[in-house]
Amino acid sequence: MNMYESTTTVRVRYAETDKMSVVYHGNYVPYFEAGRTEAIREFGYTYKDLEDDGIIMPVVEMNIKFLRPAHYDEVLTIKSFLKELPTDHRIEFHHEVYNERGKLLTVGKVVLFFMTSPDMKKAAMPAQWRDRLKGYF
Amino acid sequence: MNMYESTTTVRVRYAETDKMSVVYHGNYVPYFEAGRTEAIREFGYTYKDLEDDGIIMPVVEMNIKFLRPAHYDEVLTIKSFLKELPTDHRIEFHHEVYNERGKLLTVGKVVLFFMTSPDMKKAAMPAQWRDRLKGYF
Amino acid sequence: MNMYESTTTVRVRYAETDKMSVVYHGNYVPYFEAGRTEAIREFGYTYKDLEDDGIIMPVVEMNIKFLRPAHYDEVLTIKSFLKELPTDHRIEFHHEVYNERGKLLTVGKVVLFFMTSPDMKKAAMPAQWRDRLKGYF
Amino acid sequence: MNMYESTTTVRVRYAETDKMSVVYHGNYVPYFEAGRTEAIREFGYTYKDLEDDGIIMPVVEMNIKFLRPAHYDEVLTIKSFLKELPTDHRIEFHHEVYNERGKLLTVGKVVLFFMTSPDMKKAAMPAQWRDRLKGYF
Repeated sequence: MNMYESTTTVRVRYAETDKMSVVYHGNYVPYFEAGRTEAIREFGYTYKDLEDDGIIMPVVEMNIKFLRPAHYDEVLTIKSFLKELPTDHRIEFHHEVYNERGKLLTVGKVVLFFMTSPDMKKAAMPAQWRDRLKGYF
Repeated sequence: MNMYESTTTVRVRYAETDKMSVVYHGNYVPYFEAGRTEAIREFGYTYKDLEDDGIIMPVVEMNIKFLRPAHYDEVLTIKSFLKELPTDHRIEFHHEVYNERGKLLTVGKVVLFFMTSPDMKKAAMPAQWRDRLKGYF
Repeated sequence: MNMYESTTTVRVRYAETDKMSVVYHGNYVPYFEAGRTEAIREFGYTYKDLEDDGIIMPVVEMNIKFLRPAHYDEVLTIKSFLKELPTDHRIEFHHEVYNERGKLLTVGKVVLFFMTSPDMKKAAMPAQWRDRLKGYF
Repeated sequence: MNMYESTTTVRVRYAETDKMSVVYHGNYVPYFEAGRTEAIREFGYTYKDLEDDGIIMPVVEMNIKFLRPAHYDEVLTIKSFLKELPTDHRIEFHHEVYNERGKLLTVGKVVLFFMTSPDMKKAAMPAQWRDRLKGYF
């Protein structure tokens, strides 16, 4: 399949658990974000650089399925995928979270927009990212 | 329309903002949770009571659309809806978040299961809730 | 005693608990912040107004004692005190958190500075606050 | 000096920043916790193992000084120290957080108790930890 894939890991913190003794469902959101941050870093230009250059990427949509729980101190693997090269201001990341035994815990899709800041107009993917990515599609 | 509706408010904390100067997208998850908690309280039997009785309600799916940002110190109104009466272990809440000017900021759907704890078998909506709710549908 | 006192409440969210089935100790920090925000609002000029006017109040020191745990869905009372009127850029808030049975759970002291933003020079308490507060000391 | 020292790193997440464009002061609490978790892992018996064996370590006191801010995407180094070997149910960790340029950002002291769970009686440091640590003091 034509797509870009990136992998990172996080270790579950006590702060991220809840009284069900598992990771609180909302805490997968920063895990996905950690995955995207590393995927973007591999494009050769960090999300921080992007913001410093006046582009921000607000999240406009998020869909998550929770299949199995994660627990304190587990090392989770976050896989982040681009399944298509963005053609306008919209970019769609897919995320999968696995535990140490390779079990799939959570699946998510996160849609973001490229926007100029502070005037908030639609923008495009930076040329550096596009050049680095287009060989994958 | 036949449905159950509940309303609560939250005030945005500094901790809930991010460097875009708006509420971090992941922080709508506890806002929705606050909305559900109050909706459930109105059923005459709290979520805490439910857990004390050996039933838990893990979130299995969540879909969120982010339309407009929320800012520090704004009072947000969380509307929580049940659009159908659950017939098995699955319950679907719909949430809308509004700012003080009545603008719709965020729309979400959260699917939860009724499960026994700690043996994690599918369960049904408590009779108290069903009795309280069935007049709405 | 000569001091200023303000009271607000928060309801414990599921997200704020951890696998010890109590409020995660770090989550008292936003509770204290909620208490300060309301105390400041009573001074007749909000913290948001202050930031809009180019003054920020970074936290420079925090001391907390955890005496008893708080639990999911409890309504906590946050008391916030000023025990002296600031004379320079330094302000010291004292916080106490009580549960519904009036038990003292947590005691904290938070020191903040008044600073200009973005140039980060030491600033003084706004005159409006001082005028509103000086009758208490 | 006779003490035990452990080092770990965290990368600052967007979720951990606030509208001052720096790490929210409360988010150093999970950073310290990440440092303690790794320090404890080096004692040859994880905190998770400890809890599985019926001992918990609630935080009873925390003192933090915030010297300089941390920013999004920075890799922070968390140093965790034991300056004395616990002789009873009380253990005191010291933490220092540094940025990538080696600047000291935050200094903290966290006091925890060893307690049995669920009956909450005072307990002692596990023999495995003590044996592993006593050579350092």
